[in-house]
Amino acid sequence: MHISYNEIHQAIADCVEGKDVYESFKPTLIIAIGSGGFIPARMLRTFLKAKCGKSLPIQTIGLVLYDDNLDKYDPDTAVVRKTQWLNYSHGEGTGISLQGHNILIVDEVDDTRKTLSYAVAELTKDAEKQRHEYEARRKEGEPEWQQPKLGVFVVHNKIKDKKGSLPADVLESRYFKCMDVPDNWIVYPWDALDIETHQQRADERRAGERAAKKAKVDGDQ
Amino acid sequence: MHISYNEIHQAIADCVEGKDVYESFKPTLIIAIGSGGFIPARMLRTFLKAKCGKSLPIQTIGLVLYDDNLDKYDPDTAVVRKTQWLNYSHGEGTGISLQGHNILIVDEVDDTRKTLSYAVAELTKDAEKQRHEYEARRKEGEPEWQQPKLGVFVVHNKIKDKKGSLPADVLESRYFKCMDVPDNWIVYPWDALDIETHQQRADERRAGERAAKKAKVDGDQ
Repeated sequence: MHISYNEIHQAIADCVEGKDVYESFKPTLIIAIGSGGFIPARMLRTFLKAKCGKSLPIQTIGLVLYDDNLDKYDPDTAVVRKTQWLNYSHGEGTGISLQGHNILIVDEVDDTRKTLSYAVAELTKDAEKQRHEYEARRKEGEPEWQQPKLGVFVVHNKIKDKKGSLPADVLESRYFKCMDVPDNWIVYPWDALDIETHQQRADERRAGERAAKKAKVDGDQ
Repeated sequence: MHISYNEIHQAIADCVEGKDVYESFKPTLIIAIGSGGFIPARMLRTFLKAKCGKSLPIQTIGLVLYDDNLDKYDPDTAVVRKTQWLNYSHGEGTGISLQGHNILIVDEVDDTRKTLSYAVAELTKDAEKQRHEYEARRKEGEPEWQQPKLGVFVVHNKIKDKKGSLPADVLESRYFKCMDVPDNWIVYPWDALDIETHQQRADERRAGERAAKKAKVDGDQ
């Protein structure tokens, strides 16, 4: 299925509004999973800014699904590898602490869920390490560690058996998807070599969906 | 001026094709300046992939123009600050070396040039540091340090006095801009709260530009 930029932009707007992403989770930090999450994360920031009045910081992490057998990519055996990660060290002015943040992890698609599962697990480990370090140096009277919360935001969730898992509390209350889709190939606009043809196909798909919906409504009456 | 996603996508395609971005520079690494460069960088990768047959890695750096006087943002006094940077340390599997890379730094706009100037200067310093470290540990017979090359890619270059500068060799042969624009406010699609209205305005602007161009051609004849 071909999907246009404007459709994705609108789907994110509708999700933020319809699913109370800001009101229910109050994100304070966006983490975009590169490269699929770059574009949705930047779009999302606009709609969160409309809610909270400020541009949330976006940090990025680079993750690739990597298969040692390069001839045949197999989602069952593929493993996730980091290509870029957050900097937690204080020295260089770019070090961040996860403490107290409500972190919204953004990707374009929840496919096998391996990448999201890995991102959440790694960030959870990092937070735990930071908590230990904080508590080791915390003096009496200083505030207690504030546990960060992790949430997930995706444009598309593919309906399929997932190879990766997410913590129950994330899935139950902090997992935001713009839409569920069947397990078909999604053609994102940023991969289009010819954006005019891509747009036409996206428009045709939408027209077909509308006609099918109308036919169903008419048939139900 | 309002500009649509598809226009930006097409402008990047045209620039890669018309200005021989791949053929003349052979980029091996994309560095997106966040957050403005996230979307153009991801679009750009598609057109470079069509040239070289593989998805170039995208690393991101976060830069903000920051003014201590928060009431009144002044481009003359604003300074650039890092919010995220590259990781060069080897320990965690995400450390990268700049050595030998042709690095294309991507942002949406060359406005005051302060941000681009800062990015190029910092990466040049980092490369110099890596060169020193490499040469200090290089044993006889091992290959010599390969100097990385830096290039710049922007969607829009605003015609104005620039507050920041770029090295002459970058400006002369490795500075790629999709288009020059007057120093007016550019409304990017990712900032649109209402994408339909935004698209209409972008379409009207384009129609106006086409009409003006046609009138000029007719007048010249």
